[in-house]
Amino acid sequence: MPSTTVKLNSGHQMPIVGFGLWKVNNDTCADQVYNAIKTGYRLFDGASDYGNEVEAGQGVARAIKEGIVKREDLFLVSKLWNTYHDQEHVEPICKKQLHDWGIDYFDLYIVHFPISIKYVDPKERYPPGFFNEGEKVITGNATIQETWQAMEKVQQHGLARSIGISNFNGQLIMDLLRYAKIKPATLQIEHHPYLTQEGLVKFAQEQGIAITAYSSFGPQSFRELNMKQAHDTPLLFENPTIVKIAEKHGKTPAQVLLRWATQRDVAVIPKSNNQGRLKQNLDVTGWDLGREEVEAISGLNQNIRFNDLVNYGFPLPIFV
Amino acid sequence: MPSTTVKLNSGHQMPIVGFGLWKVNNDTCADQVYNAIKTGYRLFDGASDYGNEVEAGQGVARAIKEGIVKREDLFLVSKLWNTYHDQEHVEPICKKQLHDWGIDYFDLYIVHFPISIKYVDPKERYPPGFFNEGEKVITGNATIQETWQAMEKVQQHGLARSIGISNFNGQLIMDLLRYAKIKPATLQIEHHPYLTQEGLVKFAQEQGIAITAYSSFGPQSFRELNMKQAHDTPLLFENPTIVKIAEKHGKTPAQVLLRWATQRDVAVIPKSNNQGRLKQNLDVTGWDLGREEVEAISGLNQNIRFNDLVNYGFPLPIFV
Repeated sequence: MPSTTVKLNSGHQMPIVGFGLWKVNNDTCADQVYNAIKTGYRLFDGASDYGNEVEAGQGVARAIKEGIVKREDLFLVSKLWNTYHDQEHVEPICKKQLHDWGIDYFDLYIVHFPISIKYVDPKERYPPGFFNEGEKVITGNATIQETWQAMEKVQQHGLARSIGISNFNGQLIMDLLRYAKIKPATLQIEHHPYLTQEGLVKFAQEQGIAITAYSSFGPQSFRELNMKQAHDTPLLFENPTIVKIAEKHGKTPAQVLLRWATQRDVAVIPKSNNQGRLKQNLDVTGWDLGREEVEAISGLNQNIRFNDLVNYGFPLPIFV
Repeated sequence: MPSTTVKLNSGHQMPIVGFGLWKVNNDTCADQVYNAIKTGYRLFDGASDYGNEVEAGQGVARAIKEGIVKREDLFLVSKLWNTYHDQEHVEPICKKQLHDWGIDYFDLYIVHFPISIKYVDPKERYPPGFFNEGEKVITGNATIQETWQAMEKVQQHGLARSIGISNFNGQLIMDLLRYAKIKPATLQIEHHPYLTQEGLVKFAQEQGIAITAYSSFGPQSFRELNMKQAHDTPLLFENPTIVKIAEKHGKTPAQVLLRWATQRDVAVIPKSNNQGRLKQNLDVTGWDLGREEVEAISGLNQNIRFNDLVNYGFPLPIFV
């Protein structure tokens, strides 16, 4: 693989920079994935909930067909949605997702949120989002232990080479580590200079769980969703500390934000619709920030979390 | 019972003001409990870890013997320590604690922290604290589900009339609610104007779980422990907002802090070594703060947590 990798506790190598598929439009997704592969991306971070796995798979298929990469050069990630936490639904939905991608294994399959929502048959609605029966959020019965044990079978049956978690916090991870036969390989969390989560990053890394950051650019991603809190928070791209460091290194603010993460062994999955930025985002491991610069950026922390389900109006306060 | 009560989901009534036994010295504990009962306290909040259950029980016994109260007038609370989370240890240690108190049931028995630590035989060391084998913290194997199921048996076997949890957060509570046959009656958390935890309080109360606040006075309690963070944080007793509201109502700052909690249906368990303050702390339900006053106090929130195990040097980041 061309990019720097992180060694997972499963023994596999994961690229430290990948392409995030959240909010990638269906009509451009296949081309974006294909172009990203041509640009050098090898990791693609998808999810059932993103609703674009078929198109992502088409982009991958084209790149493989044209001989740009082989399947084994790629690191394809997907996620188990909340409505499929019951043990009997985990493997079937994983297989459906593999079928959508047109592949026979994921490199990493992740529990998207630590919350079970009542099952919705994919034939009825897919992806189902948070709602059952109109506009109600109905929690499901699956415990995290039940779900994790089903995830372990997904790995044991070869459907995923590694398994992980997302949006889990310290208490729940500690509990999971009591019963897990297979430790999560990765923990994916919201992580940017306004939400550095240093305690959680340190704890997970000490446990041998690799961290992947989502929303590395902070409010940017959530302004697209018209989230008030994101509009009220100054852009990290315009933050004087970030801008000054970027100028000093001759890099963009985005590159500084990504390098700040990767230099602390936190993997990143930016997204860009712009070919130039796509390339820049990949160039975030061959140069270094100074230690004081890393600390200055970490010092911007304000514990501002954007991707809280409560912010979208869902009565699921998982971060309290 | 003389004081206002909160109705628990177990059907029992819990006094909204009680006396907290944390850091009550062994040599004065029996007298303090006895005096508190004479002053009107009916709830006593103890724990294995506080190391004073024998003496607390002596105070209770004296008050009962003198006919000041009957056992059924009291609401006695204790907690399961981290080293007894394995299912086979929960009931035996609860029985030992009842024996220490000299009573045959607790009104409420609580999981003290959501973390299992390797068993220490009470014959070897009691209470055992956090350490095993010298100065190492060795986590145990019990899952929270295993511990909670054992707690449910404690209630079913009549050793406790209600069972609860402490220091649990949203994710872990949501998971627990998936497998709990008996819902926690209460959640005890650090709660004061610098750490209002509004999301957690709202979520728990919506689930029918009553909140008990500990450390209602904020930094005060932790200055006694020489915690740097507590010395660096201005006292709530001297906070201008609190002082002004107290003056307006002709109450003490402590009373305002307690009333701010109880008025939002949050039970409190202050402690005092001073007879005058003991009485004042009990007088926190017969008068009301204005809505704007409650909001002004809530507005002091800074998410400052003192009782974090990490602050004591234990590698147990349960609040990340």
